[in-house]
Amino acid sequence: MTRKEFRDLADPEDAHAAIANLDLSPAPETVPLRESRGRVLAERIDAEMDVPGFDRASMDGYAVRARDTFGAGEASPEELELVGEVHAGSEPDVVVGDGEAAEISTGAVMPDGADAVVIVERTEERDGTLVVRDAVAPGDSVMLAGADVAAGARALGPGTYLTPREIGLLSALGVDEVPVRGKPTVGIISTGDELVRPGDPLNSDAGQIYDVNSYTVATGVEEAGGEVVLYPHAGDDYEEMERILVEAAEECDLVLSSGSTSASAVDVIYRVIESRGELLLHGVAVKPGKPMLVGTLGGENGDGEDGDGENGDGEDGDGENGDGEDGDGENGDGEDEAPGSASAYVGLPGYPVSALTIFQTFVAPAIRRAAGLPEPRTATVTGTMAARERYGEGRLRLMPVGLLEDEAGETLVYPVDKGSGATTSLVEADGVVEVHPDTEYLAAGESVEVRLFSPDVRAPTLLGVGEDDPALSRLLDRLDAPRYLPVGSREGLRRLRGGVPDVAVVAGPTDRDVESVDLGGWTREWGLVVPAGNPADVSGLSDLVAGDLRFVNRDANAGLRASLDAAFEELAADRGTTRRDLTAAVDGYELTTKATESPARAVLRGKADAGLGLRATAETLGMAFVPVGEESVRVRANPDRTAKESVEAFSTLLADTVVFDGLAGYESD
Amino acid sequence: MTRKEFRDLADPEDAHAAIANLDLSPAPETVPLRESRGRVLAERIDAEMDVPGFDRASMDGYAVRARDTFGAGEASPEELELVGEVHAGSEPDVVVGDGEAAEISTGAVMPDGADAVVIVERTEERDGTLVVRDAVAPGDSVMLAGADVAAGARALGPGTYLTPREIGLLSALGVDEVPVRGKPTVGIISTGDELVRPGDPLNSDAGQIYDVNSYTVATGVEEAGGEVVLYPHAGDDYEEMERILVEAAEECDLVLSSGSTSASAVDVIYRVIESRGELLLHGVAVKPGKPMLVGTLGGENGDGEDGDGENGDGEDGDGENGDGEDGDGENGDGEDEAPGSASAYVGLPGYPVSALTIFQTFVAPAIRRAAGLPEPRTATVTGTMAARERYGEGRLRLMPVGLLEDEAGETLVYPVDKGSGATTSLVEADGVVEVHPDTEYLAAGESVEVRLFSPDVRAPTLLGVGEDDPALSRLLDRLDAPRYLPVGSREGLRRLRGGVPDVAVVAGPTDRDVESVDLGGWTREWGLVVPAGNPADVSGLSDLVAGDLRFVNRDANAGLRASLDAAFEELAADRGTTRRDLTAAVDGYELTTKATESPARAVLRGKADAGLGLRATAETLGMAFVPVGEESVRVRANPDRTAKESVEAFSTLLADTVVFDGLAGYESD
Repeated sequence: MTRKEFRDLADPEDAHAAIANLDLSPAPETVPLRESRGRVLAERIDAEMDVPGFDRASMDGYAVRARDTFGAGEASPEELELVGEVHAGSEPDVVVGDGEAAEISTGAVMPDGADAVVIVERTEERDGTLVVRDAVAPGDSVMLAGADVAAGARALGPGTYLTPREIGLLSALGVDEVPVRGKPTVGIISTGDELVRPGDPLNSDAGQIYDVNSYTVATGVEEAGGEVVLYPHAGDDYEEMERILVEAAEECDLVLSSGSTSASAVDVIYRVIESRGELLLHGVAVKPGKPMLVGTLGGENGDGEDGDGENGDGEDGDGENGDGEDGDGENGDGEDEAPGSASAYVGLPGYPVSALTIFQTFVAPAIRRAAGLPEPRTATVTGTMAARERYGEGRLRLMPVGLLEDEAGETLVYPVDKGSGATTSLVEADGVVEVHPDTEYLAAGESVEVRLFSPDVRAPTLLGVGEDDPALSRLLDRLDAPRYLPVGSREGLRRLRGGVPDVAVVAGPTDRDVESVDLGGWTREWGLVVPAGNPADVSGLSDLVAGDLRFVNRDANAGLRASLDAAFEELAADRGTTRRDLTAAVDGYELTTKATESPARAVLRGKADAGLGLRATAETLGMAFVPVGEESVRVRANPDRTAKESVEAFSTLLADTVVFDGLAGYESD
Repeated sequence: MTRKEFRDLADPEDAHAAIANLDLSPAPETVPLRESRGRVLAERIDAEMDVPGFDRASMDGYAVRARDTFGAGEASPEELELVGEVHAGSEPDVVVGDGEAAEISTGAVMPDGADAVVIVERTEERDGTLVVRDAVAPGDSVMLAGADVAAGARALGPGTYLTPREIGLLSALGVDEVPVRGKPTVGIISTGDELVRPGDPLNSDAGQIYDVNSYTVATGVEEAGGEVVLYPHAGDDYEEMERILVEAAEECDLVLSSGSTSASAVDVIYRVIESRGELLLHGVAVKPGKPMLVGTLGGENGDGEDGDGENGDGEDGDGENGDGEDGDGENGDGEDEAPGSASAYVGLPGYPVSALTIFQTFVAPAIRRAAGLPEPRTATVTGTMAARERYGEGRLRLMPVGLLEDEAGETLVYPVDKGSGATTSLVEADGVVEVHPDTEYLAAGESVEVRLFSPDVRAPTLLGVGEDDPALSRLLDRLDAPRYLPVGSREGLRRLRGGVPDVAVVAGPTDRDVESVDLGGWTREWGLVVPAGNPADVSGLSDLVAGDLRFVNRDANAGLRASLDAAFEELAADRGTTRRDLTAAVDGYELTTKATESPARAVLRGKADAGLGLRATAETLGMAFVPVGEESVRVRANPDRTAKESVEAFSTLLADTVVFDGLAGYESD
């Protein structure tokens, strides 16, 4: 296995410049007006016709010669002879002469002879005669042809973003096809032998995982105004990777590769780019930009296998570009790629949060520019740090952060995902704060600007941390946009003491005293979850200590684990021994899992004979349950946040016992 | 022609409540994950699997038993026997025993026996032996199965808005189909005999106009999260309208009618709703909500022709509902309409700005609620009134306003479209300010909240007013998002004096002194535009006064008109007569048109023999030109706005003479 080390990391500004210099701009295209919302005009549109195209009655009433009404009033009505009617949408079959009038509806063509409309409310019809009680001037209640838009006038300029109102104006002009900026076509290549597309079967034993980055980046591209072509998954094989990258370069304005965190997959891409394109940057001096690649792919620079025969290998080059027809057939966008033109290429890091961070920071702005779209107004928010954050790494850091609101509705910012590469960080992090290399720390209360992961990202209304619990899940379902991090009771309390979360949900005994306001809670029955029918005839903790059962435990942050340890403590006291001695005898005591259902699921899969868990979980999964005890679950609020609407809503919900219905072993306050 | 008067206007709050009570909610649906961006989860999604599904190396290095490395360091390396390799995406074929190690890549499955990874940088391979220079603890550089997401844990709650990051989390969980809130299906019926869909041929002589509201409202519905069904255009015929409305009610959650301003079309709809549904509101006490209708259509309440036989006419009712099959076939959405359930109905005003105002104020929020979408964060902006605005109408007014920015970048607000019903107001107005009935005036500098016509609407960077000019159109094309209102030089100066616009473009002689800063300008040659070859042998203004030519003039606001009048003044002085006497002799002097090209176009259409215009226009349209004079066009800036970036950009552009290239009769400063 050869491994390539990253050297000479580029300056982030140089990375921005390198990407800005890449040509991602597609040719303009024409779309039906009806489908033009969100597109950007490629050229100015002048009116080709008058709107309205005729002198138009703007009120219901009677078309008259204005001079025939001079002097008319309530006290001195004029009488005119009714000579016909004109309806909207039909050609007048009447001419209005001296002393005459024609009934007319709003929007109808003014008949020849008439120069004004008397509104219906100021008239009366009497035996074929019209009584007019108002004098009108020429042009009254008439919109002249071209008065709205005149033929030849500039209607909308190039670069106009089309919203319903612009579409309305273009409708009025009879425009049914609009010249718009093309959407840059972005090819996404997922790499790494271990990746499987969501929906396909997964073999965990073979180390397969679902491909997270392809859909994340694809939808990010669409959000930025690009059109996506997803290429079939490429493994770490050089030939296959080369074939797919070259095909993508022919069909797309930009190719992104993303997915694998393994050095070998990255290395294969690196070699393909070096041989079939031009590598402009390899690694950027920004955390997490080290694995980032920027280059061009295909085109004349990249024809030769060895990269040195720029024009010497014309046949190869032609052959490749001739393949563009294939591309056309597949995605219909190939036609704007000039023969021999290179596609831009950016390689994203493998960890999902890193991939999205690098994409949003460096790539999305380039896609928007190519599409002619403005920076979204909601792309950034300003907030203050919820707690002090040390840094001082000497490298620009794009720090993933979560948002929440304080009691006054001000935005608070806290760091998440300190390099764990966890997928869950994707939904915990709302955006990124740029921390400059010479920053030693960010103080609590310091103002920071957060670039959101998406213009549609919103701060959650409530930030909760703590125990994972099925009743809690139901409660959360009833709150508007909460965020809950199931970090366990112990870690939850630690975070509550740090002052960031709004609430912590704490189960079982705790050894830590944290100032908080109790919002309410419930009790839940816990014990050992065993297979249906309890085949091993487990009766309690003593059976675990006896040592012939395989057990699965919870991690040290779990309230359930604290209750279990307390029960072992009691049992040890009964037996005149230590808890440590007892638990050392339990086969699997150190085998810890992260969520409430995890031990029970391990038992279900035959990996163990008994798991730490809840009666409710056993019932849900159709398993048997050996009760050991009850533990209290408390919702504890941050004292600075009790007036928050969401905290109050949570408190109110706790009083509604309906969420506990059907949860075995649960009792509300 | 019967006309229905609007009586008993409803309170706006009652209109909101009536619409809120309508049931627009469609059934949830399932969409592919890849297409789920912007959708809203219909239910909670719990993890059905552990992520990762196996204990996973999180660094490149060597899988070892941690205790074999205890005590290792730079000075005291440990040696381990290399027993194999494990790659990402493949099942380990090796077991790590005491004193052994296996090479492992990031993301690969930890082989049995190993409990930690030593990173590659802290090792060295020497003849099949691994030299370890660092001690590791169990779990180091390993991500345990379920450590990211544990099976059974709550992943995303109901009501979650799906952006790329949530799609990433769902990818990790292998979810490829997502249960989402359905999009309410909204049927749009365009009414009025005079309306023609954009792209179809238009007969102006018959009073036809293009249908503006259908596409405006349709794209507004899509923006609010609804799905649109556009129904074929319905005229004012009762039978046809009834058939289309009933069909739409069967297929849609909400039916909107919109288009005609004529009382007869509105009246036909009114009668259909009364007979086939239930009319809840007819007219709302808000300007412009008088013609608004709210009701239900179809379903059991609306079976009887007379509206009183709620259950007495079962056969008819069944027959109608059975028709639902037709609906299914056509748009695939009919299945969520329960048999006999009524569709909601709202009738919008006919004028485009009014239709969009009522739609955005009353209807869009209901569509968003039904779709489960939050109010867009950019739906409103706060600004200050740029000038005093009188009101005092005693009725709630939804006042269309335009936005601009002052030198400091603060948002200024000014009213547009005082009831003209003009289509151009659609793109001049950025949103609506609610002015309460007891408001007598809005003071200049008063803070107001503007509900934007679309969350994507932005204030223009520059607000210009004044003369319509072809060189100016080119200049505007080079500015970023300007707004220019071609109101003519005189009106432009008037507005500049009012203090609202950033610049006024003024042509010809002016009789008004307005404080301003001259940014530069150009001269243009003007005269009479005549048919190609000048068949009437026109040589100048004298020919017009002679009276045997049909002339087309410009309106009194045009700089061209001011130049013409000045030339007549001179001619009158030469002849010892008055200008008025001369112009009275010109056939068509009072025939005024709105834009620079309008008179020439009238000549082209054979409506006149000569038109007031520019040499440049004559050349563009391939016509002949009789020169009369030159006039100066000046760009005059508002003294309070000269430091605005866009004003400075305009000033810079004026120095670049390239925009005048090829414009006959133009000369730059």
